[in-house]
Amino acid sequence: MSEPSLEYELARRQSRRDADELWRFVRGELTAWRKDDSSKAPPVARRLEKLQDSVRQYHAVIRGDLANLTVADGWETWRRREADQLADLMRRRIDFLQNPPDCATAKKLVCNLNKVCGFGCQLHHVAYCLTVAYGTGRTLVLNSRNWRYNRAGWEQVFQPLSGTCQDAGGRSKAAWPGTADTQVLTLPIIDVVSPRPPYLPLAVPADLADRLARLHGDPSVWFTAQFVRYLMRPQQHLQNDLDAFVKRVQLRNPCVGIHVRRTDKVGTEAAFHPIEEYMQHVHEFYERRQMEAGGGDGSRRCVYLASDDPSVFQDAVNKFPDYTFLGDPSVSKTAAVSSRYTDASLRGVITDIHALSLTDHLVCTFSSQVCRVAYELMQTMHVDAADWFTSLDDIYYYGGQSPHEQTARFAHQPADGSEIALSPGDTVGIAGNHWNGYSKGENRRLKKVGLYPAYKTRDKLRVVEFPRYPEVPLVL
Amino acid sequence: MSEPSLEYELARRQSRRDADELWRFVRGELTAWRKDDSSKAPPVARRLEKLQDSVRQYHAVIRGDLANLTVADGWETWRRREADQLADLMRRRIDFLQNPPDCATAKKLVCNLNKVCGFGCQLHHVAYCLTVAYGTGRTLVLNSRNWRYNRAGWEQVFQPLSGTCQDAGGRSKAAWPGTADTQVLTLPIIDVVSPRPPYLPLAVPADLADRLARLHGDPSVWFTAQFVRYLMRPQQHLQNDLDAFVKRVQLRNPCVGIHVRRTDKVGTEAAFHPIEEYMQHVHEFYERRQMEAGGGDGSRRCVYLASDDPSVFQDAVNKFPDYTFLGDPSVSKTAAVSSRYTDASLRGVITDIHALSLTDHLVCTFSSQVCRVAYELMQTMHVDAADWFTSLDDIYYYGGQSPHEQTARFAHQPADGSEIALSPGDTVGIAGNHWNGYSKGENRRLKKVGLYPAYKTRDKLRVVEFPRYPEVPLVL
Ligand SMILES: Nc1nc2c(ncn2[C@@H]2O[C@H](COP(=O)(O)OP(=O)(O)OP(=O)(O)O)[C@@H](O)[C@H]2O)c(=O)[nH]1
Ligand SMILES: Nc1nc2c(ncn2[C@@H]2O[C@H](COP(=O)(O)OP(=O)(O)OP(=O)(O)O)[C@@H](O)[C@H]2O)c(=O)[nH]1
Ligand SMILES: [Mg+2]
Ligand SMILES: [Mg+2]
Repeated sequence: MSEPSLEYELARRQSRRDADELWRFVRGELTAWRKDDSSKAPPVARRLEKLQDSVRQYHAVIRGDLANLTVADGWETWRRREADQLADLMRRRIDFLQNPPDCATAKKLVCNLNKVCGFGCQLHHVAYCLTVAYGTGRTLVLNSRNWRYNRAGWEQVFQPLSGTCQDAGGRSKAAWPGTADTQVLTLPIIDVVSPRPPYLPLAVPADLADRLARLHGDPSVWFTAQFVRYLMRPQQHLQNDLDAFVKRVQLRNPCVGIHVRRTDKVGTEAAFHPIEEYMQHVHEFYERRQMEAGGGDGSRRCVYLASDDPSVFQDAVNKFPDYTFLGDPSVSKTAAVSSRYTDASLRGVITDIHALSLTDHLVCTFSSQVCRVAYELMQTMHVDAADWFTSLDDIYYYGGQSPHEQTARFAHQPADGSEIALSPGDTVGIAGNHWNGYSKGENRRLKKVGLYPAYKTRDKLRVVEFPRYPEVPLVL
Repeated sequence: MSEPSLEYELARRQSRRDADELWRFVRGELTAWRKDDSSKAPPVARRLEKLQDSVRQYHAVIRGDLANLTVADGWETWRRREADQLADLMRRRIDFLQNPPDCATAKKLVCNLNKVCGFGCQLHHVAYCLTVAYGTGRTLVLNSRNWRYNRAGWEQVFQPLSGTCQDAGGRSKAAWPGTADTQVLTLPIIDVVSPRPPYLPLAVPADLADRLARLHGDPSVWFTAQFVRYLMRPQQHLQNDLDAFVKRVQLRNPCVGIHVRRTDKVGTEAAFHPIEEYMQHVHEFYERRQMEAGGGDGSRRCVYLASDDPSVFQDAVNKFPDYTFLGDPSVSKTAAVSSRYTDASLRGVITDIHALSLTDHLVCTFSSQVCRVAYELMQTMHVDAADWFTSLDDIYYYGGQSPHEQTARFAHQPADGSEIALSPGDTVGIAGNHWNGYSKGENRRLKKVGLYPAYKTRDKLRVVEFPRYPEVPLVL
C-alpha cells in the first residue's frame, strides 16, 4: 500500500489550519470593527458585512478543496489502517501492562479516586495515573472505594482495569517517587506530584512520535485519548443504556454537539456564553458543509445539546426553530449541583459525553473537562478529528500539563505594544488563542508575553522516552 | 512510478486558485474602499491597511504550504516525466506531419505570412495555421516571401517547417474548406475563416485531454504552446544571439518579467498602465516568495523589463532603486513604430520574448500578443506554469478563438444589479476577469451578462476530436 510522506501530511493539515486562521482573523477584525459606532453607517456596515460573508464562503471552498484533495490522494486507506494499528497497539500494550502474570510480585502504581472534583476532572486524574503507569511500566491499581459518584466504586459502571491484578498489596510500599525497586508506589494528584514525572501530558512517546506526527493533527491528544478510552470501557449494562439512549434520541450524522456548561462554573471558572454564541459556530459549520457538498441535503440541521442547566433546551428551541435539538433535559437535571454526586448524575454525564463524542463537530468551552473528554473520545473514532471543535474559550489542555510550546514558522513584527516579535525558530509558550487570528504566549527567547498571529507558529511536539514494550508485537 | 489521480491534481490546483481569488477579492474590496474620502480618517485607514497587509501574508503562507505539499506528495518526478513525454509526443507528431515521404502527393495546407500586424500577431497567425494543419492531417506550407519583418522570409531566423516539403504545388488546389480530396488548401486568416474549423483554440485534442487536464492548469494554452515552440525553433545564428544576450544582461532566476506595451497600443487597443502598477505585483511576487522560503536570500530583486518604449527603463530605475532591472533600452528603440518592420526590430522582439519566457513570473497586459507568446513559451519550460502571470487587463485568450466557457461550481445570488446568478452546473461564457475576485460573463442558461465571483466557476475544457497519429508511437 502506498503511503504519504510525513512532510505531505504536515503540509496538508497546515494549509487547512492556515485557511482556518485566515478566516478567524478576518471575522475577528470585522466583528470588532462592526461594534464601533462609526461602523453603523449604512455604506460601512454593508461593506463590512459583504467582506465577512464573502471571506466565509472562500474559506468554506478552500476547506472543501482540501477535503477533496485528501480523498483523491489515494491514502485514506493507509490512514485508516495506520490509525487502527496504532490504537490497537496501545490497547494491547495497556492490556499487557495491566495483566501481569503474577500480581503478588508485579510492580504497581496505586491511584486513589478521591480527587475532590467532578467526573471529567476525576477521569482525567485516573488517565494521568494510567499514563504514569505506562511510563514507569507499573500496573495501575485504582482505589475507588467510596467514590463520590458511586460508593460501590468504578467497576459499577466501567470494566475493571485488570483481570489479574486489582490488589494494591506488596512487599515494599512508598509514596511517589520511591525507587525503581519499590514494589508499590502511590501517586498523588497531578497538581502536587513531586518530582514531576516526564510522562505528563502533552508528552508523546518517542517510539510512536513520528507515526503520530504523520497520522494526527494533535498527537498528544491522540495519546491521552487512548488511555481515556481504555478507562471508559463500559460494563455491559452501561453499554446497553448508552445504545438505547442514542437510539431513543435518534442521534444521527451529521450532527454538531454543543456543551453548554453553566451552574457552578459560570462566573467562577468560566464566563457566561449565551446560546447564540454557540449557534453562530453551528451555523458556520453547516454553511461550510453545504458549500463543500455543493448544496444542502434538505434535511433539518441536527444539534446534540448537553448542559448541566436544563433550561438551556427551551431557550435553544425557542430561539433556533430551524434546528433539530437532540438531547434530554432530564439528564441535565441530574447534573444540578444538589444531586450531582449520585449514580444517576454519573450515568447522565457519561451519556452526554458519549453522545457528544459521536457528533461531527463540538462547540463548547474547553475550560470544561466534560467537553475535553468528549473531544478526546472523538479522536478514538476517527483517523484525525483534531480540528473537529470550536472552543469558546481555552485551547485544548490537560490540567497540570507540562508547558505547551510552539515554534515560530515566520518572522513577526509587533504592530503595537500588545504584540510580541517572532523570529523563525523561536520557542513560544502558548497561553491561549483568542480565536480572532491571534494567540497569546511568551516568546522564550525575548522573555516577553503578548499576542502573535497564530498561523505564524506551529505546535512543538514534546517527545519523551517511554518504555517501548518489546514484548508486545507491533502488529497482530 | 506512482501517479497522482486526476481528482487530486484538480483539487490541488483548485485550492491554490481559490486562495489566489480570495486574496484578489480582499485586495480589490479594500483598495476600492481606500479610495473613498471617508476612508482617509486615520482609524479607518489604519484598519484597512492592516486587513490588507495581513490577508496578503496569509495568502502567501497558504501558497507556500500548498507548494510544500506538492513537493512532498512524491509525484514531482512523475509530473516532470509526463510533461516531457507529452511535449515530445507533440513534437514527433508535428515532425511526422511536416515531413511527408512524398511532397508531390502530400495533402497540404498553405498559410500566407501577410497578415497586416505585428510579430506576436503574425506568429499566432502561423500557429493557427499549424493547428488546423494538425487537425486536418495536412502538411503546412508557409509562404513567407516579402515578409514585412524580413523580405527574405521566415527561414532567415527560424528553422524551416519541413525538411521534405516546402513546395505549395499540387494536383488540385482550392481555398478553405475545399474537400477532403483537394490536395492543396489555402487557409485565410482566422478572423474570416469560414466555415470555422473545430480545431481553433481553445480546443484540446480528445486523445490527450485527460492527460493534459491532469498535468496542466490550462491545457489549451499548453496545446497552443507546443505549436508556438515548434514554429520558433531558432536558426543557429539566432540561437547564438539569444544565448549571448541572456549572458550579457546576466539574466538569472528568480526574476520577474514585465512587458510594458506602450506607443501605438495605448489609447487604441489598451489603457496606459504606469510602471508603479506593474511593480506592485512584482513586489507581491517577491514578498510571497520570501514568505514561502521563510526569509529572503539577501540578493537584489531582479526584473527583466521589455517594452516598445525605451523611456520606461529610466523611469523604472528612478522610481525603484531597490530592484535590479535587466534588459536593453536599445532593443526597445528598434520597436519604435517607424523602424518596427525591420530585421533589427524582429530580432529585438524575439529576444525580449525569449528573455521574458525565461523568468519566473510575468507581469504584463495580456491584451498584447507579445506577452501572450512569452507566456506560451514559458509553458514549454516547466511542468505547469499556468499561473505564473499577472495580467493588468485581459485574461489569456487566442485572437479569433472559439468561445471561452466555464462551469459554475457553486450557486451565487447576485448582490446587486451588476451581478448575475449562478446555479451549480451552469455554463458561463467568460469575457474577462476584473482581478478583484470578480469575472464578467454571460450565464448561458439565463442569457444574462454580469459579474460573478471567479472562484465559483471553473474552466470548461473544449475537447475536440483531432487525428490521433497512430503512426507515431506514444513513447520513444
Ligand atoms: N449530564 C451532564 N452533566 C454535566 C454536564 N456538564 C457538567 N455536568 C456535571 O457537572 C460536573 C462538573 O463538575 P466539576 O467539579 O466542575 O467537574 P469537571 O468534570 O471538572 O467539569 P468542568 O468543571 O466543566 O471542567 C460534571 O462532572 C458533571 O457531573 C452536562 O452537560 N451534562
Ligand atoms: N523589442 C520589443 N518589441 C516590442 C515590444 N512590444 C511591442 N513590440 C513591437 O511592437 C509590435 C506590436 O505590434 P502589433 O502590430 O500591435 O503586434 P502584436 O504582435 O499583435 O502585438 P500587440 O499589439 O501588443 O498584441 C511587436 O510585434 C513588436 O515588433 C517589446 O517589449 N520589445
Ligand atoms: Mg470543574
Ligand atoms: Mg497589435
